[in-house]
Amino acid sequence: MDIKDLGEFGLIDRLTKDIQPKNASTLYGVGDDCAVMHYPDKEVLVTSDMLMEGIHFDLVYTPLEQLGYKAAMVNISDIFAMNGTPQQIIVSIAIDKRMTVEDVEAIYRGMKKACAKWNVDIVGGDTTTSLTGLAISVTCIGYADKNDIVYRHGANETDLICVTGDLGSAYMGLQILEREKTVYYQQIDEYNNKVKAAQKAGDETELKKLRAQRRQVEDFEPDFAGKEYLIDRQLKPEARGDVIEALRQRGIHPTAMMDISDGLSSELHHICSQSHCGCRIYEKEIPIDYQTASTCEEFNMNLTTAALNGGEDYELLFTVPIGDHERLADLEGIHQIGYITKESLGMYLVTRDDNEFELQAQGWNPLKG
Amino acid sequence: MDIKDLGEFGLIDRLTKDIQPKNASTLYGVGDDCAVMHYPDKEVLVTSDMLMEGIHFDLVYTPLEQLGYKAAMVNISDIFAMNGTPQQIIVSIAIDKRMTVEDVEAIYRGMKKACAKWNVDIVGGDTTTSLTGLAISVTCIGYADKNDIVYRHGANETDLICVTGDLGSAYMGLQILEREKTVYYQQIDEYNNKVKAAQKAGDETELKKLRAQRRQVEDFEPDFAGKEYLIDRQLKPEARGDVIEALRQRGIHPTAMMDISDGLSSELHHICSQSHCGCRIYEKEIPIDYQTASTCEEFNMNLTTAALNGGEDYELLFTVPIGDHERLADLEGIHQIGYITKESLGMYLVTRDDNEFELQAQGWNPLKG
Repeated sequence: MDIKDLGEFGLIDRLTKDIQPKNASTLYGVGDDCAVMHYPDKEVLVTSDMLMEGIHFDLVYTPLEQLGYKAAMVNISDIFAMNGTPQQIIVSIAIDKRMTVEDVEAIYRGMKKACAKWNVDIVGGDTTTSLTGLAISVTCIGYADKNDIVYRHGANETDLICVTGDLGSAYMGLQILEREKTVYYQQIDEYNNKVKAAQKAGDETELKKLRAQRRQVEDFEPDFAGKEYLIDRQLKPEARGDVIEALRQRGIHPTAMMDISDGLSSELHHICSQSHCGCRIYEKEIPIDYQTASTCEEFNMNLTTAALNGGEDYELLFTVPIGDHERLADLEGIHQIGYITKESLGMYLVTRDDNEFELQAQGWNPLKG
Repeated sequence: MDIKDLGEFGLIDRLTKDIQPKNASTLYGVGDDCAVMHYPDKEVLVTSDMLMEGIHFDLVYTPLEQLGYKAAMVNISDIFAMNGTPQQIIVSIAIDKRMTVEDVEAIYRGMKKACAKWNVDIVGGDTTTSLTGLAISVTCIGYADKNDIVYRHGANETDLICVTGDLGSAYMGLQILEREKTVYYQQIDEYNNKVKAAQKAGDETELKKLRAQRRQVEDFEPDFAGKEYLIDRQLKPEARGDVIEALRQRGIHPTAMMDISDGLSSELHHICSQSHCGCRIYEKEIPIDYQTASTCEEFNMNLTTAALNGGEDYELLFTVPIGDHERLADLEGIHQIGYITKESLGMYLVTRDDNEFELQAQGWNPLKG
């Protein structure tokens, strides 16, 4: 269905008509100048992220539903990263003119799934058009008790450095998707060249054959067998609210925390510079999935570099007092990768062969190049 | 200065280093996964707006500082439109690769001015790149006492309909700017044709003269004498917090309210459909500035249509019980333009010659065309 047949208000109505507030804090959602919320005796947390086509996602290999899921989830992840409870999101979306009502519905379906998973209400936003590609901006609101909030600046000397899950997998997923995209365009190019030749030769039989080939190329679903985990990590990241809950249940309170969106190395720089400290992390302790390792080998890439600088894993990086060592040890999926030092000792990676390399904050920089 | 020389974190640091929280509700701003706010015993209001290059603004005639000012101000306006007090904004900005650090600073300078005017803190956001033009998404957070909030759905039969300021001026400002842009490109086209002819003829003297002419065209500052008000209304709208304050001081509590961003006619449709009522408004009572009227004549446009459907005036539209008639009468800049009726009586404009025309909600639809 064409979006202009519905108009802005018709489209918003269609996208939001099944949205029912689930949180007591959500007093009024979609349909007025503002959403209205109430947080008695709590601190309000707010975060915002913008996803631009061609920079943060490529519609050639990103299904719209997963894009919506990711746009909501990365914001929800930021609330957990402060040890908060996500409650509402506000969605601004600029729709490219190529898109249909069904396309926008697919994006919203993904956002609703991500929100349902963490009991978050969609309470409003802005729907408009773009001349030049899709843009999605999501703002997430949550709450926390004042004493529960974990900032980046609270790490202390001797604290343990922990990460959840595994690192580098979302980045390797991206490499695979980019490779498939290159192959796809090569095949289309080859086809176009063959068509030109056949047209020049006036060969109708050949043209018919080529058209059938093109359909095959277009319909081809790449086989990601053995790489499904990496593709999922890139396209459909999960916020680690489960870890936040597990830490709370055990009474473990991190001293500093953030989510890993730009890469472990870059995030460690944030925590260390804001906490005025240094760190040592151990290469052999960095959690890496088997698929990540084998794909790195296949791509002839350095595994530790992928894990340090890959980004988009949306795992949690946090520090805890050293006394929590044992209580953490039996928590599944949490890895102690090093410890906090004096600021003067700098930030270093200790390699498997006991060399020390200074950690670079190269991260993922969308403003470069 | 080139943005890639600073990198994302360097740029954010430069843009935000002079930002100091002014509101007690702002506990923690830029620099972590989330901003942290506290609103004891208040309702939290949140609104979000996205401005896309080529759709909402044209950089040919929009100075970047004014663009930043407008991006912040239209969100602040939404908080006032609920009878709230704006407190914080979160800014997501996708920067086109053409732009320099100074360009982004100009946008932020404008946002800071708008925020300073209403004592609003900038508490965070996201800074990234765009392949295809500038995109700005602003989320504004405010508060209100539960009983003070004014929704769109509270209008009652016999309520008076009021608007602040004057209408249609922002729209006529846009017409003037668009005309200047057309003239500018015509002159550049003419120049290009003359250059081609001179190059063909090998006429060096003529080419030199043409180059001087081009500089003149490029340096030409259009003369908006007598239209300054309209240009300002389009490029630098003001939120009507002054009116909100004046109503409070007089103890006048609107029954329904919103700001006029899409045009009076479209906003009346929102209020009437959400309040399940109809309305009569009087053409002769719609406030119109002298410059708007004379420019409409110049452009051969219908003045009432411009005032009804123009949009972007960011004036307030509100309803009050009929008993407030006299208390409102001596408030400068507030115009009683009609009254609320039963839903079955529909929504009509009563013209100067006492005809009735049904109000169309054509408004400004960025999703059309």
